[in-house]
Amino acid sequence: MALPSPSYTITLRVETPATQRATSELVHEVAATGASVTGVDIAHSHKDTLIVDVTCDTVDADHGGRVVDALNALEGVRVLKMSDSTFLMHLGGKIEVTPKVPLKTRRDLSRAYTPGVARVSMAIADHPEDARRLTIKRNTVAVVTDGTAVLGLGDIGPAAALPVMEGKAALFKTFAGVDAWPVCLDTKDVEEIILICKAMAPVYGGINLEDISAPRCFEIEARLRDELDIPVFHDDQHGTAIVVLAAMINALKVVGKDLGDVRIVVSGVGAAGSAIIKLLLAQGARDIIGFDRRGSLHSGAQKSDAHRAAIIESSNPTDFQGSLRQGLVGADVFIGVSAGDILTGDDVATMNDGAVVFALANPTPEVDPIEAAEHATVVATGRSDYPNQINNVLAFPGLFRGLLDAGASRISDEMLRVAAVAIADVVSDDERNAAFVIPGVFDPRVAEAVAEAVREQASRELAAAGEKASTGAAAVTDGRETVADWREESRGW
Amino acid sequence: MALPSPSYTITLRVETPATQRATSELVHEVAATGASVTGVDIAHSHKDTLIVDVTCDTVDADHGGRVVDALNALEGVRVLKMSDSTFLMHLGGKIEVTPKVPLKTRRDLSRAYTPGVARVSMAIADHPEDARRLTIKRNTVAVVTDGTAVLGLGDIGPAAALPVMEGKAALFKTFAGVDAWPVCLDTKDVEEIILICKAMAPVYGGINLEDISAPRCFEIEARLRDELDIPVFHDDQHGTAIVVLAAMINALKVVGKDLGDVRIVVSGVGAAGSAIIKLLLAQGARDIIGFDRRGSLHSGAQKSDAHRAAIIESSNPTDFQGSLRQGLVGADVFIGVSAGDILTGDDVATMNDGAVVFALANPTPEVDPIEAAEHATVVATGRSDYPNQINNVLAFPGLFRGLLDAGASRISDEMLRVAAVAIADVVSDDERNAAFVIPGVFDPRVAEAVAEAVREQASRELAAAGEKASTGAAAVTDGRETVADWREESRGW
Repeated sequence: MALPSPSYTITLRVETPATQRATSELVHEVAATGASVTGVDIAHSHKDTLIVDVTCDTVDADHGGRVVDALNALEGVRVLKMSDSTFLMHLGGKIEVTPKVPLKTRRDLSRAYTPGVARVSMAIADHPEDARRLTIKRNTVAVVTDGTAVLGLGDIGPAAALPVMEGKAALFKTFAGVDAWPVCLDTKDVEEIILICKAMAPVYGGINLEDISAPRCFEIEARLRDELDIPVFHDDQHGTAIVVLAAMINALKVVGKDLGDVRIVVSGVGAAGSAIIKLLLAQGARDIIGFDRRGSLHSGAQKSDAHRAAIIESSNPTDFQGSLRQGLVGADVFIGVSAGDILTGDDVATMNDGAVVFALANPTPEVDPIEAAEHATVVATGRSDYPNQINNVLAFPGLFRGLLDAGASRISDEMLRVAAVAIADVVSDDERNAAFVIPGVFDPRVAEAVAEAVREQASRELAAAGEKASTGAAAVTDGRETVADWREESRGW
Repeated sequence: MALPSPSYTITLRVETPATQRATSELVHEVAATGASVTGVDIAHSHKDTLIVDVTCDTVDADHGGRVVDALNALEGVRVLKMSDSTFLMHLGGKIEVTPKVPLKTRRDLSRAYTPGVARVSMAIADHPEDARRLTIKRNTVAVVTDGTAVLGLGDIGPAAALPVMEGKAALFKTFAGVDAWPVCLDTKDVEEIILICKAMAPVYGGINLEDISAPRCFEIEARLRDELDIPVFHDDQHGTAIVVLAAMINALKVVGKDLGDVRIVVSGVGAAGSAIIKLLLAQGARDIIGFDRRGSLHSGAQKSDAHRAAIIESSNPTDFQGSLRQGLVGADVFIGVSAGDILTGDDVATMNDGAVVFALANPTPEVDPIEAAEHATVVATGRSDYPNQINNVLAFPGLFRGLLDAGASRISDEMLRVAAVAIADVVSDDERNAAFVIPGVFDPRVAEAVAEAVREQASRELAAAGEKASTGAAAVTDGRETVADWREESRGW
């Protein structure tokens, strides 16, 4: 099933005889290994030899080695070097810290740094709420991990997690203008992680927890939400839940069913599964059954942690007891956030007509999406090479954009829900079909729609709580006059 | 003594009668308060009234208020708004996080993020030393504070310290291409600060401690140097010491004396003073006497902390006992890192001929620099409005540039010393005179010279320790071919 992918693009620098035939053979040999040739450039030409750069997509690292071997086996051909575009992209890191102010003259220096900065510091010391106006706090999010559950790779440690967190920071900025900074912690101790997040919070307007293993992630998130005055979001749970709900809203429109009426089977009750169940219930779902490896979570199941207990309390109204396969019979919706290849097309065939299958285990889905599509109406996966990719990048940039703009001090379940509805609504009635229940990751409408929905909801909640929504966003947009307004208003000039 | 300064530039929006005389009066009134008018712009013109923006430098915030009052007292004139250019420069923060890679297409995404990033993460998990090549660690420094000793403002807290740390980060990038990130910690507990710095270290190639109050800063620095494998630098100590030594080398050339022969009096034996004494000794000074409020540190003085004990051990070879004033008699050099206005010109007059006075207390020097200059040959301060400004920005950007490029895992006293010599050497024999013993902060030669000296020293020390200097810098500069080389070398393709 593996196809050549741009994440395995290599460039080989090859010495060949200077003949038409030799270069044709080169391309033929590379293609014969299954690689997809995307470029052939002559780097140097000599009387008898050519130095050729062959760029191709391969399936994996071993495949790259086979391409090299195949070329070296050709008469007169020698591979001089291999470079790997993915590694090249990461050289020296993927983000940088850039000044927004010039520092070219003494006048610049005396305003941005000493002595002028002292007045700005004193203004914040006197009026702590001004930190959101006069510092990076207003636009900055910490992406915090301990490297214990990185992608599907497991506990690879904080240093190895850094390329992922840098990538996430780059996405935050590219998709929503949010400044995000990687915080990769060399500790797995829950209390230490909580202590660190609390201590570093003055710099940040929000915290995005990422790739922290369960059940530690639950306690860290819950404690930080209680003890901090900035929003704390665990992307593996809530980011996934938002995008799943968004896709589900549209999938059910495609099959003509109501969320309140369908039976939903969820495989996997870890971080993501429990958050998905909670958000589906918030949107009006009633008949959800969660399954772990031992079968359904029913009234007699072991409440081995708080999340399982909450799921047992709130789901499985018919108290179904049995295996996942048994539970699938007659169900309308399957959502898998568990493990690859645990179901077959035959299992999907036992579902109700107009079945919806979200098989989100990565890289190998719970059921082969092509087999699933023979029996289900809508199929979604976490992969980019099938339709309907459930990708968290649809949620987190716009969500934090909205939170920061509103100056939110906490994140509510209702904010998550409106974010999902906003993503779903980006897909118009004309666009919506079984192969398009969720917008593409590069759709520029998404982050904007999510930000607006979250900003409005956050402002409503701030108003309800008697707080005034921050006007920080406007102040930054409107330069000189607005800071004058602000100073007049708040300092009484 | 206070003059209008660009760090107190204000713009007033004023409504006046639409006459030539009225606007002239406006400018006259502003100038009469002692403000320096730098611009008069008509924002709007109506039949009978003008809306005028008057921009001027003022002495301090109170002065701004007096300008407003003076204008409001004029007939037909009304100040509508006041804005403050220093505050405007800080609006929304002074740094941002910028992606270095495009994320516009699926191909970009699959390399910079999932699934491609997984291979980069695994490469680091397998070869931890690759973190310096494949992540931001190779170019990134944490600027860590707890906000307890910010500028001369004291314990104003981590949120109020953030504008200063942002400014520092902006200087790091502008002067030496170093990515620096503010870490403002909401804890004063030494053990917690150490724990946090150690936990967050995977992201950073160095740590710059800043504005942490003594004596806590000493223990934090010492412990982190022992327990971390990245360089740890306390700017308030070592940055100041480097620039003082640099200026001293040139000042002694101006007065024609040898460092080994002069008597040096140091007022203040806190963080900066103790570091200055240590570095002067490393460069060959022999006769240094430290003074605190009670007088000289002599053999019978109380060793109330490790730093005082070290100063007592290594300085005051004649075991001088007495007050600062007494110690100054016949001394060649005075270095003050203590408090403002503790000496007079008459005190300076008691020093040896060709006296050198570094009065570095800020904003008010230990002795008025104009009075001091009547009796001393060379006078330096920490202020930008006198010649010979001792400014740490001459040291820290180039120092960390050199450390990062060398892949240094520690910082040695010798690196600090060569950094100082490099700064001193930037001033050529032709340029050097009593009013120019240290380069200007915007001199582009400085950071480069410091970086080169530190890089070479660090590489020598790495080689002596049997380690191979990192080639990370070259790899980043040289793009594709180098990563190929690197992979061939280190992975055996």
